[in-house]
Amino acid sequence: MQIIATGVCHTDLYHLFEGKPKDGFPVVLGHEGAGIVESVGPGVTEFQPGDKVLPLFVSQCGECRFCQSPKTNQCLEGWSSGGYETMSSLETRFTCRGQKVLQFMGTSTFSQYTAAVNTAKVEPGSTCAVFGLGAVGLAAVMGCHSAGAKRIIAVDLNPDKFEKAKVFGATDFVNPNDHSEPISQVLSEMTNGGVDFSLECVGNVGVMRNGLESCVQGWGVSVVVGWTDLHDVATRPIQLIGGRTWKGSYFGGFKGKHDVPQMVKAYLDKKVKLDDFITHKMDLESVNDAIDLMKNGK
Amino acid sequence: MQIIATGVCHTDLYHLFEGKPKDGFPVVLGHEGAGIVESVGPGVTEFQPGDKVLPLFVSQCGECRFCQSPKTNQCLEGWSSGGYETMSSLETRFTCRGQKVLQFMGTSTFSQYTAAVNTAKVEPGSTCAVFGLGAVGLAAVMGCHSAGAKRIIAVDLNPDKFEKAKVFGATDFVNPNDHSEPISQVLSEMTNGGVDFSLECVGNVGVMRNGLESCVQGWGVSVVVGWTDLHDVATRPIQLIGGRTWKGSYFGGFKGKHDVPQMVKAYLDKKVKLDDFITHKMDLESVNDAIDLMKNGK
Repeated sequence: MQIIATGVCHTDLYHLFEGKPKDGFPVVLGHEGAGIVESVGPGVTEFQPGDKVLPLFVSQCGECRFCQSPKTNQCLEGWSSGGYETMSSLETRFTCRGQKVLQFMGTSTFSQYTAAVNTAKVEPGSTCAVFGLGAVGLAAVMGCHSAGAKRIIAVDLNPDKFEKAKVFGATDFVNPNDHSEPISQVLSEMTNGGVDFSLECVGNVGVMRNGLESCVQGWGVSVVVGWTDLHDVATRPIQLIGGRTWKGSYFGGFKGKHDVPQMVKAYLDKKVKLDDFITHKMDLESVNDAIDLMKNGK
Repeated sequence: MQIIATGVCHTDLYHLFEGKPKDGFPVVLGHEGAGIVESVGPGVTEFQPGDKVLPLFVSQCGECRFCQSPKTNQCLEGWSSGGYETMSSLETRFTCRGQKVLQFMGTSTFSQYTAAVNTAKVEPGSTCAVFGLGAVGLAAVMGCHSAGAKRIIAVDLNPDKFEKAKVFGATDFVNPNDHSEPISQVLSEMTNGGVDFSLECVGNVGVMRNGLESCVQGWGVSVVVGWTDLHDVATRPIQLIGGRTWKGSYFGGFKGKHDVPQMVKAYLDKKVKLDDFITHKMDLESVNDAIDLMKNGK
């Protein structure tokens, strides 16, 4: 397959700068691509040369008990194939100057749109908070908006992100640096007790805790969308006993082969925005500049 | 009201030996009572002398947004009335030798039966694990059984509890002390990847973590039923991202005034067991012996 275009995601940066798995390098990064099939090997029946395709990290074998269940998108095959620990497949087809180069795969951010719908199950008329306004967070804002949320509070340390969040449907904007109280208290005061749904789109265990604790007691639901696995995430038991629910989402709750084509159709029907996510178009040669732009929140 | 009978619960012990709130003593403990109305004050219209009543910690004012919602049983009135911090009401009607004595209230264990039904939403044919086999855990076992669980794994460090758990519907019995691996791994191996539902009925943050991590990826749901608020409860983010849900239950998810009478009827109709919870009947004078029996797991 020839890759025609790819995004750069914080999950790439996580692998590069934070996760640093000892067996994880050298590696070809990138996991949000689109391309064209050049040739197929023996036994391949679903694709032929010339097909336009999206390579997906989340497999859908269609046969395991996870694929058979409507409750999850996490195919047994994908989750247990070794990518879990290193986020890289140790069996690779790449080499460079005679040395094995690993394949890297991760979540595909545009599908986080559906985390708000599939995992949080945001309800019409509800109040939501989205922490972090990268592409994942913007997609979550769009998902909340599409689900009919009345109020969508966008939270980010970088106020430059608020304008774009408005395009995707955010109604309120909060920069935690503007407040001396904890962000959960700020949101609680803004919403008479807390939000109905929150989505953590940063990948930081402190923000995950804030996400849960910003929810209203009784029925608030907080979804962890951002990826990190370096530290424990924690809260007081009373937060859960008080009626809050803590969940997580991977690949937006999408069953890859089944659901992604519907998302593509929704884009073609202008029901979801994708073009607004694009901030820069760059050649592959400029990939290190792209990494720098992302590190600097641009 | 004259109290005719009361249970002794670990929540009483928690207040007495662990929580030790500085403003929480002296106090009249006990929160699982039944009694008869002796007289009523002005403005009381729902009760008259001679009525047999169950005093409930969880109020149901019927008017706040929480009472109006089917999603929660946590009345705004009850949760915000000051008992939250000290589990004792600082406004009290009791005095002893001229000194103010606090009132103490907490969860009513028999209602934890419904945590499995109301909060976990245990499904027919599912596999469940119940951690801790005190009255709360036994009630959770009964709830799972009533919801149609195929397999109910009872977990306790005290194997003397297993016989009674069997009476309430448990099918498998695990003593973590019999295993060198973590209990989550033991349960995962017993169940081909983890249980569908787990209920923590101990009130220990380590057990809460085990409860979550014993659940199957993709759709496992873990409910915190036991009460503690001394330490953070923690897990790795990947546990949530992997599709597990962490919830809590308070008073079994019961709306007190509305739901408790139905539970009383279910007992009278022999649809729920209550008599099997009783291990000892003692006079009020022996209350310290009762506390000792509970401390020693008897």
